[in-house]
Amino acid sequence: MANILTIGEAMGLFVSKEEGPLKSVKEFRRLVSGAEINVSIGVTRLGHKAYYFTQLGKDPIGDNIIEFLKSENINTNNIMQVKDYNTGIQLKGKTKEGDPEIAYYRKNSAASQMTLDNIKSIDFSNIDLLHITGIFMGLNNQTYEIVYNLVKKAKENNIIVTFDPNIRESLWESREIMIERINAIGCICDYILPGQNEGEILTGFRNVDEIAKFYLDYGVKNVIIKLGEKGSAFFIKEKGEIKTTLHPGFKVDKIIDTVGAGDGFASGVITGILDNLSDYDILERANAIGAIQITHQSDNEGLPTIDELKEFIKNR
Amino acid sequence: MANILTIGEAMGLFVSKEEGPLKSVKEFRRLVSGAEINVSIGVTRLGHKAYYFTQLGKDPIGDNIIEFLKSENINTNNIMQVKDYNTGIQLKGKTKEGDPEIAYYRKNSAASQMTLDNIKSIDFSNIDLLHITGIFMGLNNQTYEIVYNLVKKAKENNIIVTFDPNIRESLWESREIMIERINAIGCICDYILPGQNEGEILTGFRNVDEIAKFYLDYGVKNVIIKLGEKGSAFFIKEKGEIKTTLHPGFKVDKIIDTVGAGDGFASGVITGILDNLSDYDILERANAIGAIQITHQSDNEGLPTIDELKEFIKNR
Repeated sequence: MANILTIGEAMGLFVSKEEGPLKSVKEFRRLVSGAEINVSIGVTRLGHKAYYFTQLGKDPIGDNIIEFLKSENINTNNIMQVKDYNTGIQLKGKTKEGDPEIAYYRKNSAASQMTLDNIKSIDFSNIDLLHITGIFMGLNNQTYEIVYNLVKKAKENNIIVTFDPNIRESLWESREIMIERINAIGCICDYILPGQNEGEILTGFRNVDEIAKFYLDYGVKNVIIKLGEKGSAFFIKEKGEIKTTLHPGFKVDKIIDTVGAGDGFASGVITGILDNLSDYDILERANAIGAIQITHQSDNEGLPTIDELKEFIKNR
Repeated sequence: MANILTIGEAMGLFVSKEEGPLKSVKEFRRLVSGAEINVSIGVTRLGHKAYYFTQLGKDPIGDNIIEFLKSENINTNNIMQVKDYNTGIQLKGKTKEGDPEIAYYRKNSAASQMTLDNIKSIDFSNIDLLHITGIFMGLNNQTYEIVYNLVKKAKENNIIVTFDPNIRESLWESREIMIERINAIGCICDYILPGQNEGEILTGFRNVDEIAKFYLDYGVKNVIIKLGEKGSAFFIKEKGEIKTTLHPGFKVDKIIDTVGAGDGFASGVITGILDNLSDYDILERANAIGAIQITHQSDNEGLPTIDELKEFIKNR
C-alpha cells in the first residue's frame, strides 16, 4: 500500500433528482464534489491510502465533507476549517445523457482563500505520489503558488507527480494565462494526462502524436492522452525514440453522466503506477474505471474496488 | 386592492427531507426563503398586490427565485440580476418540533452588495404601504442606508410604514449597534411589530406595557407585540392615554416549524390595515395566520388565502 497526496477544492454537491433546468427542479440529493476527491476515492478503493488537503468553512457543508471523506477512509488530518469563509457549493442537473447543467457557488470560498502558509505543516516523508489538477491552481494567484510549491517539494523528495490538466476555462483570467500556467506546471511533472481536446487547447496540435511530442520534448517522462470512446494512448521516450502504447477502451451501453470519468481514469493511472503495472495494463485499468464511472450519476459513487474492477475487465 | 412595497434578501432554501443534523442529511427540497418574501406571499394571497425589491445573482438560484415570485403573482419589475455576485443560499434542517437547525451562505451575496443607486428607479406613486424588517438593514452599512432612505421616501409620499424588527443578532457587528439602528428606524415607522423577547432586547423592558410605552413615547403611532402562544397585544395612544387591545391567539395541535410565523403575522397586520379592520380584528387575523404557519415545514407554503383564513377563524 502506497500513500498519495492531493490538494483541491471540495464542494457540497446538490444533484437534481428530476430532469429539467436547474432553475426549476425541486428535489436534490446532497453529495460531495471535487476532482481531487474523486481521485482520492478511486485510489483508496483500489487499496492505497489518500491524504486529501484543503480548507473548508466551519459550516454544515464543510462538516459533511469531513464526515464523507472519513467514511471513504481518506486521511483528513491536513484539512482546516475556518469561520470567516464558507465551503463552496455546486449544483448539478440531471440529463437523459451526456453533460449535465452545472452551477458553482465558490466565489470567496474557504478553499480559494488558502495561502502558502497552509501547506507548511504538510509532511512529505511518507508520501509516494502527489496528484494535482488544473482546477485548484486556477482559482487565483495564491492557489497557483501553492500548487507550484507542492510540486517543487515533491521533486525535492523524489515523489512521483501526476498531473491532470482538467481544464475549467471559466476559472481563469484568459485562455492565454491558463495555457501558460498549466503548461508551466505540466512540464515539470512526471505524468501528464490531458484529454485530446485539452491537449489541442494546451499545445495547438490536434494530432495525439504531436501533443505527446510537445510534452516529451519539454522533458515530461510520461504522456497519457485520453481519447474518449477510443480509449487512451501512452507515450514515453526510449533511447530518443517515442514509444506508443494504445488501449481501445471499453464499450458502454448507456452513458448516464460523463462527470468524474477523467478523475476515475486518473485514479486508474495512479494506482497502476503504484502497483507497477505495464503501460498497457495502466491504460486498460484507467479506461475501465472511466467506463464504469460514466454509467453513474454521482461523480464518485461508482468508482470500483479492485475486485469490481477485475470483474469488469474479465467480462469484456 | 392596495399595493405594498418591500425589500429584502431572497435566498435559495434547501430544506432537509430527513430528520438529523444538517451535516449528515442527504435529501433536500429546494424552496425560496426570505422574511419579506413570506410577507409578500401572505399579502398577495389575501388579495393585495406586493412589489418585492432585491438584487439577485445571474445564476440558477436567482432564476428560480424570479420564477417562484412570478408564480406567486408578486411583482418582480424592481429586481435586478448581476453577474459578479451569487444569490444567497440557506440550509434548513428538519426537527420533530420547534426551531430547526439553520445555516446561511449569504456572505458577499448579490443582495448584500446593493447601494442607494439601486433604489433610485423605484416608483412610489402607486404604493400604499412599505413593509421593512430588521434583517436586510443588518447586512451592512449600505443596506441600512437603503432602508433608511426608503422609509424617508415613504414618509414624504404619505405611505404607511410597517416594521418587523425580526432580530438576527448574528448579522450585526454588536448588540449595541443592532439596538441603536433598529430603534432609530423603528421609531420613525407607523407600526412596529416586535415579539415580546425582541421588545425586551430592544427596550430593556420585559413588561409588554412598558415596551409599548417606550415606542409610543418615541412617537410610533401603533405598537403590536407578539406574545407567542398567548396571542398578541395592540397599543395606541388616544388623548394622551394608552389604549390596549388583546387577542388570546389560537391553539395549535402540533407545531411543525416556527419559522415564518412572524412573517405570516405581519402579513395579517398589513392586510388588516389595508382592509380597514378594527384593532381586535387585525390581531385576530394576524394570530390566525401565525397559527396556520407553524403547522407547516415550509416558510411560506402554508400561508392562507382569504377563504382559508375565514374558514380557520370560523372553526375555532
